[in-house]
Amino acid sequence: MFIIEVFPVSLFEEVVPDMLRQILIHTVARRAAIVTLIQKGAVRGICHSQPCCSSDVELTSVRYPGVQRGSYSQLSDKHVQHFKSILPKERVITDEDDIAAHNVDWLGMVRGASQIVLKPKTTEEVSAILKYCNAENLAVCPQGGNTGLVGGSVPVFDEVVISTSLMNNIISLDELSGVLVCQAGCILENLDSYLSERGLMMPLDLGAKGTCQIGGNVSTNAGGIRLIRYGSLQGSVLGIEAVMADGEVIDCLSSLKKDNTGYHLKHLFIGSEGTLGIVTKVAIQCPPSPKAVNVAFLGLDTFDDVLRTFKEARSGLGEILSSCEMMDMLALDAATTNLNLQRPIGEFPFYMLIETSGSNGTHDEEKLTSFLEGLMGSGIIHDGTVASEPSRIKSIWQLRELLPASLTSEGLLNSYDMTLPMKYLYDLVPLVSERLAGTSAIRCCGFCHLGDGNLHLNITTPKFDPAVLKIVEPFVFEWTSKLKGSVSAEHGIGFKKTQYIHFSKSQSSLNLMKDIKKLMDPKGILNPYKVLPAQH
Amino acid sequence: MFIIEVFPVSLFEEVVPDMLRQILIHTVARRAAIVTLIQKGAVRGICHSQPCCSSDVELTSVRYPGVQRGSYSQLSDKHVQHFKSILPKERVITDEDDIAAHNVDWLGMVRGASQIVLKPKTTEEVSAILKYCNAENLAVCPQGGNTGLVGGSVPVFDEVVISTSLMNNIISLDELSGVLVCQAGCILENLDSYLSERGLMMPLDLGAKGTCQIGGNVSTNAGGIRLIRYGSLQGSVLGIEAVMADGEVIDCLSSLKKDNTGYHLKHLFIGSEGTLGIVTKVAIQCPPSPKAVNVAFLGLDTFDDVLRTFKEARSGLGEILSSCEMMDMLALDAATTNLNLQRPIGEFPFYMLIETSGSNGTHDEEKLTSFLEGLMGSGIIHDGTVASEPSRIKSIWQLRELLPASLTSEGLLNSYDMTLPMKYLYDLVPLVSERLAGTSAIRCCGFCHLGDGNLHLNITTPKFDPAVLKIVEPFVFEWTSKLKGSVSAEHGIGFKKTQYIHFSKSQSSLNLMKDIKKLMDPKGILNPYKVLPAQH
Repeated sequence: MFIIEVFPVSLFEEVVPDMLRQILIHTVARRAAIVTLIQKGAVRGICHSQPCCSSDVELTSVRYPGVQRGSYSQLSDKHVQHFKSILPKERVITDEDDIAAHNVDWLGMVRGASQIVLKPKTTEEVSAILKYCNAENLAVCPQGGNTGLVGGSVPVFDEVVISTSLMNNIISLDELSGVLVCQAGCILENLDSYLSERGLMMPLDLGAKGTCQIGGNVSTNAGGIRLIRYGSLQGSVLGIEAVMADGEVIDCLSSLKKDNTGYHLKHLFIGSEGTLGIVTKVAIQCPPSPKAVNVAFLGLDTFDDVLRTFKEARSGLGEILSSCEMMDMLALDAATTNLNLQRPIGEFPFYMLIETSGSNGTHDEEKLTSFLEGLMGSGIIHDGTVASEPSRIKSIWQLRELLPASLTSEGLLNSYDMTLPMKYLYDLVPLVSERLAGTSAIRCCGFCHLGDGNLHLNITTPKFDPAVLKIVEPFVFEWTSKLKGSVSAEHGIGFKKTQYIHFSKSQSSLNLMKDIKKLMDPKGILNPYKVLPAQH
Repeated sequence: MFIIEVFPVSLFEEVVPDMLRQILIHTVARRAAIVTLIQKGAVRGICHSQPCCSSDVELTSVRYPGVQRGSYSQLSDKHVQHFKSILPKERVITDEDDIAAHNVDWLGMVRGASQIVLKPKTTEEVSAILKYCNAENLAVCPQGGNTGLVGGSVPVFDEVVISTSLMNNIISLDELSGVLVCQAGCILENLDSYLSERGLMMPLDLGAKGTCQIGGNVSTNAGGIRLIRYGSLQGSVLGIEAVMADGEVIDCLSSLKKDNTGYHLKHLFIGSEGTLGIVTKVAIQCPPSPKAVNVAFLGLDTFDDVLRTFKEARSGLGEILSSCEMMDMLALDAATTNLNLQRPIGEFPFYMLIETSGSNGTHDEEKLTSFLEGLMGSGIIHDGTVASEPSRIKSIWQLRELLPASLTSEGLLNSYDMTLPMKYLYDLVPLVSERLAGTSAIRCCGFCHLGDGNLHLNITTPKFDPAVLKIVEPFVFEWTSKLKGSVSAEHGIGFKKTQYIHFSKSQSSLNLMKDIKKLMDPKGILNPYKVLPAQH
C-alpha cells in the first residue's frame, strides 16, 4: 500500500497523529511530506516510519552473502491453511505489498523475504503458532514496532513474521503501587499518555516512542533518555509472560516489587531479542509524574567542559536530574539544516540538554538557577536557555529526539552505540571523522546519554557503501573493546553485530549463552541469525 | 571457641565494634551480654552473631526427617589432602569447634553436619575447588555472612562449606560514575563506610549489614530498607563474576551502566542462592551520598492511616523519600522490652519510620514540614518526632534494625516474609494471632517495608514447636497465594521454603528452572536441597 503521494499535506493535518502514524508506517514516506509534518508539530515519532521505499533496499541475502539460510522448512500452502485455522484469515497476511514494510528495517539496511505475517491478539494464539512452527521446523521472526537499529526485528530470509501489533491491551493499573500490566504490543507513547492521565509515567522514554512497542522495548532491554533517573528495564520490569519456542507459556508475570521465589526467569527474556521466547505480557513499575519539569539547553566549548557540567549537574541537581544529554555541533546541524528546526542558542562545538523533574517547582527552580549560575560564574558555559512551559520543553526535546530522522534524510545512516569510560566517551568521533576523509561519508557526528556513558556515533552516506563500513568496522569495536567498553550499549546485537559480540563478551559467557539457547529453543526457530554468532 | 562467659562486659566496651563482631560470631553469645552491649550503643549488627549455642540446635536431618541425602561422595582424607594442595592448610578448616558456627543458621532453625570449611581468597581457588568437587561428586554449600533466614547458607547434611569471608578486597571504584567493583566476601557495612568517605553510598542497606557479605546479598537478591528509593539489586548490579559447578569462570563483570551484548547472564546468579554458581566478584552502581538526611518517627491509630500516610509521603516527599517502614505495637514492644531501647513517642497501635535523603537540606526540611503539617492537620497522626542529627537518626533506626534481635531473645523466631497487595498488607498479623491463641507462641507481630508491599510476620516461641508451625504453615502461604502475593519477598527460598515455592511460581516456570539447574550443574553439587523442590 503505497499511498502517500496522493495524500495532500492539508489532509494529514486533519487526521489524528495515531492514524497518521499507522498510515505512514505502511507507506513510501516522502521526506518532504514528513519534514513538513514535523515542522508543523503534527506528529511525534514519525521518524520511525519507513524512510525509503522497501524495494529500494537490497535483500539481506544479497548484501550479506556470507550468511547461510538454516535448514528450516519452506512455507507451503499447508502451513498457510493451518495458520488460518489458528487466526482469522484477515490476520494471516500474505499479500506482498502488505508484507513489504515488515521485511525491511527502519534504517533501510536489511531486507528479508518473508512471505507471511501473522498478527495474533492473545498469548494463546502466539502459543498455538509457535507450537506449530516448532513442530513443522518453520523459523519465525518476532516483530514489535520494528524500530530497531541492528536488524533484529526483520526476517533475514523467509522467516514467518509474528507481529505483536494487535496485542495492545492494557490489562491493569494499580494506581497506588504504580504497577502497569499490559500486552506486549502496546505502543510506548500510548502507555505514557494513559499513565499521565493518572499521575504516573513510563520509566523509559526514547525517540521511537510513537512507534516502538513495550514488548520490543523489553526484548531489547531498551535504554533511552530517562535511564539516568529511573534505571534500566532490568530494574523496573517486575514480571513477564513469554512463549517459548515449543509454545509453552512461561508465566512470570508477577506484579510485585519483590518476589524472591526461585530463579528470576524474566531476565532470560529481557534483552535476548526474541531468541529465547516471545514476550506477550509485561508488568512494569511506573514512577509518579513529576509536578515540575525544567529543561536547560546549553552551549559549551570543549568535551571537558561537558564532563565538568555533568559532574556539577549530578551534585547540584541531585535527585531531580532526569536527563543529561550531549550532542555535538554537526549533530545539531543535521536537525537544523535537514529538518529546518530552530537552534535555540548560538553556535557551539557542544550542546547539552539537561532536564529536571521534581515534586516542588520552587525548589527545583532554585536548584537549577544555582547550578546554572555556578557554571556561568566559572565560565564553563557561555550561552543557554531554560524552558519550563510544556510547548518550549517539547520543542527543545525535538532537537534531540529528531536527530536520527534528520540523519536518515541524508541517505543511509550508519549508527553505532557504545558504552565507554566517561573520559574517552567522545574520542571516537574525531578519530573516525579523520579516517573517513575522502570517502563518500557526508557527516560523522556524535551524541551521548551522558549519565550512562553511552555514545551514539553516526555516519551518513548517500547510499550503502561497503568501503566506508570497512574503514569503520571493526575499528570502532576494537577501540571500544580495548577500553573495556560495550560494542552495543542499548541497541542490542540483532543481525548486524553478531560477529562483534566477542569484543564485549568472554568465550565462556558465549558458550553458556549458546547452551541456554539450545535448551530453550532446540531447533533454533526463534529469530535465527540474530544475537549469537553463527556456529562454526 | 566458646569464650563469652569469661569476657567481662567492661572489656567488650574497650574493643572496637569490628573485632567484637568477629569474636561474637564465633561465640555462644549470651543474650544478657549482647543486650547490654546494644544498650550501650557499642555494637551495630551484633544481632547477627549466633543467638544460641550451635550444639543446642537439632540437626536438620533429625528435625526434617523427610529430606534424603543425595548420592554424593563422603568426604575422605584423600579429599582433605587435595584441598590442602589447592589452599594453604590454615584455610582448610576441619576442627569441629571452628566449623560449628558454619553449620548452624542465625535463627538456630537448621544445623548441618559439614566436616570441612574451605576459605578461598581468589576466583582461581574457588574454581579449582569446584572443579575438584564436581569431578569427585562432592556436594558444596557456598556461604557468605550466614545471615540468611531460610536456611540457605548452611549445609543440610555434610556438604563442603565454601566460605567467601576471606574474599574481601575492593578492586576498584570509579568516583565519577559511582561504579564499585569488589570481591564477594566484602561486608556490606564496610563497603558503605568505604564509599561514604568518597561521597557515595551502597544502594542497599539491611539490618544484617555488619555481617552480611555483598556476594550473599547478590546471590539472595537482598532487598532491605533503601529499595523504595534505589531499586533492586537486579537494577543496580552491573556485573558479576561467578564460578559454575564444573569450575568454569563466567566473567560478566561489566562495570558499564549499559551493555546489550547478548543474554544478561548475571541475572542467573542474582537470587539463585548459590545453586547455579558461586558469585566471586560484583560490580555495583553506587548513588551519591545525600547531603541531608531526616527521619520522622510517627504514631498512628489504624493501618488505614498508615496507608494514607504512605500515599501522602510518596506524593509530598517525592524524590527525597528514601525509606518508609511500618512496625506494629507488639513489634516495637519487643525492642523496648527485650533490649531496653527507648520508645521515642507515646504508645500507638502502629508506628512509621520515614526517611528523606536529598541534596538540599533546606528544601528537604520544607518538604518534610509541609508533609507532617498536612498529616497533623487532617488528624492522621497524633504524635511524632523528627531527627536530623546523625546520633538521633541512628537511635531511631536502631528501633527498626534491632527488631529481629529483640525477637530472637525470646526463644525461637519464626520469620515470614510476604509481598502482598497494599490494602491487605497487614491482615495476616491479626489473622494469625487469633489462630495462635492457646499455643506456645509468645508474640505475633508485624513490620513492613511499606514501599515494597513487603510484610515481615514474626512469631516467637520458647523453642522449636511443630504444633505452632502446623497452625501457621501452609496457611500463610495459601492465604498469600490467593492474593497473588509472594511467599518470599526478599528472604529467598533456601532450605525452608522449597515445598512452598509452587504457591508463587507456575509449573512451567518451575520446569524451566529445573532445566536450567540441570544445564548449569548436571550433578547437582551446588547448594543441594535448596531453592527447587525435590524431584519426585
